[in-house]
Amino acid sequence: MLTLYDFELAPNPRRARIFLAEKNIDYKKVAINLRELEQFSDTFKAVNPRCTVPALVSEEGSCFADNASIAAYLEARFPEPPLLGRTPEDKGDVAYWQARIESDGLGAVAEAFRNSNPAMAKRGLPGTRPVEQIPALAERGLQRTAAFFDDLNEHLANREFIAANQFSIADITALVTVDFARVLKLQPTEENHPHLCAWRERMKQRPSAKA
Amino acid sequence: MLTLYDFELAPNPRRARIFLAEKNIDYKKVAINLRELEQFSDTFKAVNPRCTVPALVSEEGSCFADNASIAAYLEARFPEPPLLGRTPEDKGDVAYWQARIESDGLGAVAEAFRNSNPAMAKRGLPGTRPVEQIPALAERGLQRTAAFFDDLNEHLANREFIAANQFSIADITALVTVDFARVLKLQPTEENHPHLCAWRERMKQRPSAKA
Repeated sequence: MLTLYDFELAPNPRRARIFLAEKNIDYKKVAINLRELEQFSDTFKAVNPRCTVPALVSEEGSCFADNASIAAYLEARFPEPPLLGRTPEDKGDVAYWQARIESDGLGAVAEAFRNSNPAMAKRGLPGTRPVEQIPALAERGLQRTAAFFDDLNEHLANREFIAANQFSIADITALVTVDFARVLKLQPTEENHPHLCAWRERMKQRPSAKA
Repeated sequence: MLTLYDFELAPNPRRARIFLAEKNIDYKKVAINLRELEQFSDTFKAVNPRCTVPALVSEEGSCFADNASIAAYLEARFPEPPLLGRTPEDKGDVAYWQARIESDGLGAVAEAFRNSNPAMAKRGLPGTRPVEQIPALAERGLQRTAAFFDDLNEHLANREFIAANQFSIADITALVTVDFARVLKLQPTEENHPHLCAWRERMKQRPSAKA
């Protein structure tokens, strides 16, 4: 069986859990407690030397150590339902929105969070090297998160899903991003972001949202 | 025929040109002169409202407006030779290294360049919104670029290619990154990075490197 190294409260492992749930794939979870810095333990370093979760290990022992690799591997091995698009055009559209939501959305929230939260001191970026916090970058992240809500709201004005007229990994990344923005006390509002709020409500109805 | 909106001197369009060359795909180029800020012209805004190159437009008029979407679309439409991996395991490995090189390599060079170069004033990030330069981020980018050379050199100690024992998009992104780091006056050296330099020499022998 597949093994997912996971932490319930972090956004990136949640992306992998929703992806697995949408494909109805069985797997077992191993919790790595990020609050206790368990990702830097020798045991986990042997699984993923970069010390990040999620990491997915196959029956044969191959390790897929970020969401990009987990998605590419699972989509190829379990094609249905497709979460990266079905046709060439759809695959292109999904990849575009996935990249934009990662950079303009999740990247924005992460730079605000990692560069301001005291628990993230010297951990301005993921990985094993110390990276000092930059206050101006935290501020930039807040502004970009607000702009991301505006842009995504506009994009969703006449769309049911973010890309290719179908549920995809782009919806997963966006849902996790909007939920995670709570750590910044920034949330979309019915008044300013009605389309984004309606989309979010639809996404929350999917059983995978609780994975 | 496919149309690539391109700028000869910028790293991201070069990634698309090499990808197209490796797949032997015919296309026509339209130059968008970034030095003259032509990406913000109304004409190009009608192609890609985000005002970035590369953008690839299909015969049917679909626009793929970043490297992620261009690669996903072309790989699905022209599967041979595969540049995103052939088996599920290989696809996962290629996606992992592609993401790492984008974040730790190209992302590092870009943050150093965009946050320090006077021509990039108020353009700390791509897109249409003004983003102020952050000097501490330029400094962080320099340190991360140096670390990227060290890490990639170590990774290539016993590998011919970056991922999955085959030429892939990860090699393309890494080659473009290392070449682009010239703008920072940072380059790998034979003394400190012999494996990275040997790999780079192999990559430069491929006809696509001149695309």
